[in-house]
Amino acid sequence: MTYCVAMGLSSGLVFASDSRTNAGVDHISTFRKLHVFQQDGERTLVLQSAGNLATTQSIISLLLRRSQDPDQHSMLTVRSMYDAATLVGETVREVIQRDSSTQQNGTATDFSCSLLLGGQIKGEEMRLFNIYPQGNFIESAHDTPYFQIGESKYGKPIIDRVLDYDTPLEQAMQCALISMDSTLRSNLSVGLPLDVMIYPRDSFSAAQQYRITENHPYFSTIRKGWGEGLVSIFKQLPPLVL
Amino acid sequence: MTYCVAMGLSSGLVFASDSRTNAGVDHISTFRKLHVFQQDGERTLVLQSAGNLATTQSIISLLLRRSQDPDQHSMLTVRSMYDAATLVGETVREVIQRDSSTQQNGTATDFSCSLLLGGQIKGEEMRLFNIYPQGNFIESAHDTPYFQIGESKYGKPIIDRVLDYDTPLEQAMQCALISMDSTLRSNLSVGLPLDVMIYPRDSFSAAQQYRITENHPYFSTIRKGWGEGLVSIFKQLPPLVL
Repeated sequence: MTYCVAMGLSSGLVFASDSRTNAGVDHISTFRKLHVFQQDGERTLVLQSAGNLATTQSIISLLLRRSQDPDQHSMLTVRSMYDAATLVGETVREVIQRDSSTQQNGTATDFSCSLLLGGQIKGEEMRLFNIYPQGNFIESAHDTPYFQIGESKYGKPIIDRVLDYDTPLEQAMQCALISMDSTLRSNLSVGLPLDVMIYPRDSFSAAQQYRITENHPYFSTIRKGWGEGLVSIFKQLPPLVL
Repeated sequence: MTYCVAMGLSSGLVFASDSRTNAGVDHISTFRKLHVFQQDGERTLVLQSAGNLATTQSIISLLLRRSQDPDQHSMLTVRSMYDAATLVGETVREVIQRDSSTQQNGTATDFSCSLLLGGQIKGEEMRLFNIYPQGNFIESAHDTPYFQIGESKYGKPIIDRVLDYDTPLEQAMQCALISMDSTLRSNLSVGLPLDVMIYPRDSFSAAQQYRITENHPYFSTIRKGWGEGLVSIFKQLPPLVL
């Protein structure tokens, strides 16, 4: 399983991904699920992935390889975020079609994946897309400024309570970390380390990328503070009257 | 969808169920999902249901009808909670087998359901069971004192943080209500009113049953208090340091 969240806010974009993958409960590994396509001062594109690891790795590999050829239509040459989302969607279809065409023995393998693509290309506003296994996509909006993929439910209530389009980036990242914490506690197949990134609007910079491991001092502090805070407000609820 | 939670604690049992059922998003109704089989001073059995409404209603109907005949093996004559769980499991299999045997046109209807059964029969300890669509079941324990059925994920983190086997009944009910609140906010197919019940150990009484509607003063108070409390502890988190 996986949990990724991306937020498209007035002042920038916030991304957080876990890094655990599993095939059953006895085959657990760590893989990065947050990938950046960067040209300083010109474009920053961030792609997060959930779903079949063979599919998502192939998609990322193809997108990366093609972006090394400056003459090819690629993540580094597309002229708009919309074109980038279309390109990712096409690559999703290409890989799933290739891999599922050789399906054997009637076993039903799930080759599907979901992706979040956020970023900005010079001359355009920032945009954030949720790309489906079918390769089509939707875009975030003022009223719905975030997307989740993977194991989204445990971490959704806190986002719904504290996030809106005008939430500052640092507070949005705190919210993403708390959302991650709730998910990590409830689902063993979501695991540390986390890969997180803050993209300030019009910065065209991927400098604010961080990896959060088990003993990260700030993450440990807010996990503890949040847990203790929850228990303390629970204890302050008025006595039961039914 | 549905959300039901049941807690088996040292001092008694706590139950909470929503009442929304839906077939698609345009066919939403209210049905009670908490049912009590009661003989004052002798036995209290509480059954909560989630899943296919035709299946769960048939199971409840058959269990109720059979319990009206004092000579029949029924919820009111079984000699132990284990026998009651077995009887419910048999009735699950009976109904699912009957209804799915007439499956038509190759359409894959999901006839399955999940049930929680908790209670006490004189001469025995209280017990709490989670009964699967296959009719088999598991029992709660000191380490895992609660079960959820239906839309369980949104409301799980708070239970995991505040509930243990020795939590007093009133606090456990507060926890169940907060868990319900998180679920109601996040999933439209879980809806008010709620049916809740507290069973104090060795009481053999079903007196503490309550229905919680939209304007229930206590539920409104703690929903508000909890929401504001969450936002306030979120705002008190230390500034972001990555």
